[in-house]
Amino acid sequence: MESYLDNSATTKPCKAAVEAVAEAMTTTFGNPSSLHNHGFAALKLLEASRAAVAKSLSAEPREIYFTPSGTVANNTAIFGAVMQNRRAGNRVVTTAIEHPSVSVCMDRLEEQGFEVVRIQPDKAGHITPEQFEAAITENTILVSLMAVNNEVGTILPFDKIKEIIRRKKAPALLHVDAVQGYLKLPIVPKRCGIDLLSVSAHKIHGPKGVGALYINKGVRIKPYVLGGGQEEGICSGTQGMPAIAGFAAAVGAFGSTQENLKKVTALRDELLTLVSEIPGVQIHSPADALPYIVNLSLAEIPSQVSVNFLSMHGVYVSAGSACSKGHRSPVLQAMALDPKQIDSAVRISLSHETTKEEIEYCAQMLKEAVVQLRKKG
Amino acid sequence: MESYLDNSATTKPCKAAVEAVAEAMTTTFGNPSSLHNHGFAALKLLEASRAAVAKSLSAEPREIYFTPSGTVANNTAIFGAVMQNRRAGNRVVTTAIEHPSVSVCMDRLEEQGFEVVRIQPDKAGHITPEQFEAAITENTILVSLMAVNNEVGTILPFDKIKEIIRRKKAPALLHVDAVQGYLKLPIVPKRCGIDLLSVSAHKIHGPKGVGALYINKGVRIKPYVLGGGQEEGICSGTQGMPAIAGFAAAVGAFGSTQENLKKVTALRDELLTLVSEIPGVQIHSPADALPYIVNLSLAEIPSQVSVNFLSMHGVYVSAGSACSKGHRSPVLQAMALDPKQIDSAVRISLSHETTKEEIEYCAQMLKEAVVQLRKKG
Repeated sequence: MESYLDNSATTKPCKAAVEAVAEAMTTTFGNPSSLHNHGFAALKLLEASRAAVAKSLSAEPREIYFTPSGTVANNTAIFGAVMQNRRAGNRVVTTAIEHPSVSVCMDRLEEQGFEVVRIQPDKAGHITPEQFEAAITENTILVSLMAVNNEVGTILPFDKIKEIIRRKKAPALLHVDAVQGYLKLPIVPKRCGIDLLSVSAHKIHGPKGVGALYINKGVRIKPYVLGGGQEEGICSGTQGMPAIAGFAAAVGAFGSTQENLKKVTALRDELLTLVSEIPGVQIHSPADALPYIVNLSLAEIPSQVSVNFLSMHGVYVSAGSACSKGHRSPVLQAMALDPKQIDSAVRISLSHETTKEEIEYCAQMLKEAVVQLRKKG
Repeated sequence: MESYLDNSATTKPCKAAVEAVAEAMTTTFGNPSSLHNHGFAALKLLEASRAAVAKSLSAEPREIYFTPSGTVANNTAIFGAVMQNRRAGNRVVTTAIEHPSVSVCMDRLEEQGFEVVRIQPDKAGHITPEQFEAAITENTILVSLMAVNNEVGTILPFDKIKEIIRRKKAPALLHVDAVQGYLKLPIVPKRCGIDLLSVSAHKIHGPKGVGALYINKGVRIKPYVLGGGQEEGICSGTQGMPAIAGFAAAVGAFGSTQENLKKVTALRDELLTLVSEIPGVQIHSPADALPYIVNLSLAEIPSQVSVNFLSMHGVYVSAGSACSKGHRSPVLQAMALDPKQIDSAVRISLSHETTKEEIEYCAQMLKEAVVQLRKKG
């Protein structure tokens, strides 16, 4: 039995994505910038892919810019907004629980002399609109927050920030890193005044190597990756067509956000019920977290020891996020968890493709881990 | 009959690349940063791919950093070197015939207050080591030049620059954009003292959406794309594994640089012989250019008119580079060609997969284009 429950690190590409990628490498292999039939065919595929991603965000196709990753989308949004807006102020507001592709950009902005305010979460990873209210000032040029935290699944109040920015008369653009929330939560950037929003294909059963940045059509930013002017100059470089086509196919195959959410909530609830029977398990994800992510500590067994044991038994989960490999999670630290809890934390991340059997097998192996590893300790 | 001769814009991925991409999306779909069996399998594939690309440059695997494109490799090299070296001087030396993924970075450096010197080519696109000798000073922090010009195929003296930098006691790093020369010319960065070298997969029958930056192991640069620290922090973002695996497969399938060069030279020579019979054709590529690229003017027929005519007849070439779409080529302008010649220029770009029949068919259609389009004019 195998149970892949590391879907927040990466998902298995769906069949439609695999086929679309192959098609874009065999039949439609032209450069979309080439002005001949092979180029036109590639351009048509590119624009159809853009329309598919746009539709998934209730956006216009011209508001979607393909990037090579969620990381490049975040870098482009943050540096692009700050460079565009730098004369309007010097302050940037973000949270203490961002993904490194945001937080490391913030560190660099600080090096460059910007004032970066990192809002702290409570013990459950929650951050309130009132905290943003207190942090946003008249000289704030960018507010950047994630929709869903990648380690514990907490949902941030991304839909309530624009009105605060307006009320504070701040010149700030609003950027939302929606990599973990995309298609899993209903997110309509236009409806909540989001200026810039980043997504990635490989978290939704698309290929690794492609993301997108939504830019509200009234908003201008300075490009970060410079060159031939592809993607209207926002992200230069020949478009990675195979992955882009795979991205669009994965969006098409993902199914209903609401139905998937209902299904995954039931699976998550079952997991929580089953693990509640295991002695020494503590759940770090709050009850109102996105159900796709469950963060828990397994007694006081070091994270990597549990992860290895589970991997040997065909259950694949992670110690914190895949991106903070080997370091003590800054997210759980910001949540001020006990160091013992942090060092034994395990992230279990689901997909709508996850089955009841996989959840049961996972719970069984978690139990087995506690029995076997505690015994050894 | 079809004749795809736009291989400098993009190539058709080879069978091995298509298969490797599919494999990396089905079997080896893990995140190489994940610390479980699926992650380890992906990491193994990543490192095997890195070793394959390293071998193709006679480099060590740890000197190869995957990037999402040649463009990101160029941005990373240029901004990374300048940020690292900015206290050592203020001058950057480059050429007037670089690809936009270099030249637009140079424009931004200039905006930021750096002194950028753009060396001009002669009428054939040649630039001499003496011109670099005259341009490089004690406060030059970066020299960036292409190995092979993407529009006319001129080979630049990239292997003679390091000794000039040393002689001038300049603190400069040497960056070579080798996107058009990679595997087509013998290039061993270590042998000629290149510090940073950019390559791309989709010009060598690999997938679009992946490139690599060679960084000499003794050289440090500041990262440009920031985040989770993948690729030793040089280029963050989950690695685009499908395309990376396809890149390595394409490198393996490319064959011998010398034998391909011999084959393509014969094809190019035949093309030149055939087109020499067409009245009003002028060849812009010098005799010593890389034979993969032939730039010529077809009487005084506007480039796009020729390109369209040829495309309708199954011959795919480009008007200048795919990346300068719609603009008058800055490369041909720098070469000080007559505007009439620039506006009628066509780039024919070959691959070692190109056949004698394709070349003959192309020549026949070029002839037909002159007959038909001049008649109309």
